[in-house]
Amino acid sequence: MTGSSGFLYEGKAKRIHAGASSDRVDLEFKDEATAFNAAKRAHLEGKGWLNCQISARLFDHLERSGIPTHYLGLSPRGAHWMTARRVRVVPIEVVIRNRAAGSLCRELPIDPGTPLDPPLLDLYYKDDGLGDPLLTESRLTLLDLVTPERRQEIERMARQVNAALQALLVPLDLDLIDFKLEFGETEAGTLVVADEISPDTCRLWDQRDRAGDDPQRSLDKDRFRRDLGGVIEAYREVYKRVQGACPDPCVCR
Amino acid sequence: MTGSSGFLYEGKAKRIHAGASSDRVDLEFKDEATAFNAAKRAHLEGKGWLNCQISARLFDHLERSGIPTHYLGLSPRGAHWMTARRVRVVPIEVVIRNRAAGSLCRELPIDPGTPLDPPLLDLYYKDDGLGDPLLTESRLTLLDLVTPERRQEIERMARQVNAALQALLVPLDLDLIDFKLEFGETEAGTLVVADEISPDTCRLWDQRDRAGDDPQRSLDKDRFRRDLGGVIEAYREVYKRVQGACPDPCVCR
Repeated sequence: MTGSSGFLYEGKAKRIHAGASSDRVDLEFKDEATAFNAAKRAHLEGKGWLNCQISARLFDHLERSGIPTHYLGLSPRGAHWMTARRVRVVPIEVVIRNRAAGSLCRELPIDPGTPLDPPLLDLYYKDDGLGDPLLTESRLTLLDLVTPERRQEIERMARQVNAALQALLVPLDLDLIDFKLEFGETEAGTLVVADEISPDTCRLWDQRDRAGDDPQRSLDKDRFRRDLGGVIEAYREVYKRVQGACPDPCVCR
Repeated sequence: MTGSSGFLYEGKAKRIHAGASSDRVDLEFKDEATAFNAAKRAHLEGKGWLNCQISARLFDHLERSGIPTHYLGLSPRGAHWMTARRVRVVPIEVVIRNRAAGSLCRELPIDPGTPLDPPLLDLYYKDDGLGDPLLTESRLTLLDLVTPERRQEIERMARQVNAALQALLVPLDLDLIDFKLEFGETEAGTLVVADEISPDTCRLWDQRDRAGDDPQRSLDKDRFRRDLGGVIEAYREVYKRVQGACPDPCVCR
């Protein structure tokens, strides 16, 4: 079933539907939240459209910064729908870390919040069944997932994305701690940033209204992972900042 | 207490004692077996001297192959004692894999026994508390554990060890599946192979007396990890083969 309204694939946070033409898909962002490789799950009303709108804004910013993405525009199908190029997903997840947080601090002797300069770039094999294992250069070569040239291109583009996102987010008092990127290849072989860029896939620490000296007021999925509460409120705060202002009529209430 | 007979350090498989001079230590191989980062433990009578004698034979073979080790000789203190250079231990474990087995097959989509050509070389941060995490090049740089030159030297030497061990073991019908190495630096700054090389640290599959087409008759710690039984019998078989013959009087009964 790959007709013009056909359902193609369901992931943890999105459903992929066939788009208006064969080279397009429609992404439907879900309200389901998962963490720890889906061991923890919840329904978070409003997460879908927030992540869709935030991703749209960030993809648009990347495009304006000269970085190709799969994003084509918001979709008339709803506020939680986006139109994107149809791509072959590269089975590698790229994580860039500007500060130490999360799994890195469990894996290495490094304190949360430690600045990483240069930013640490890690590649993971995109495979839920294997728990998205960390890839070394040798393991990447062994699995023969991408050519060495493509790998260089992926790493270079990921670092460009980091710089572009920081240029947008730092003035909004959002400290980009780390983020995950996925990439796709168009039919013509062009590498583009794919998937989503949202508080589900970025760690963002609020630099505004900080409680005392605590630099770690999370406006991201760590609120869900760590049962901190206020998940949707945090996502909405990110949405408001990256939009500049709420649209009129405001959809964030 | 670092006197001439002083006890210096106790690891999972060995005790380190001060040696006859300040640049030497005596290694006492224990009969304790541990696996899964010491979550599984047992007393295996005879393991200590078997691993000591096997390691002595393999270190001696490496030295004869031009590869510097910490090994100086067997010790008059007992059949499970070895004299070694005193070294600063490099906090990196090197694993070379000639065939896929063990954790690699849980982490990547690769079947046990698959030949790896070139052999896969992985570096791990030697830290039991962190579970000896896998190191990428970037993470190694971040932790600043060794200089890039030293790292190259470690990897080069590990590949030399692999070739030398295979040259010894293949004619003995022992298929060297993978092994772990540790390195030390002498006071003069020379890099040497340290720790032990034994069925505790190598996977060895018997190519003699194979049951049908099963290439995986383990003569190594997998017999303990996987409750296959006959652990000491397997280690003794390795001992007999690498010695060429039992000493007279035989100590392996």
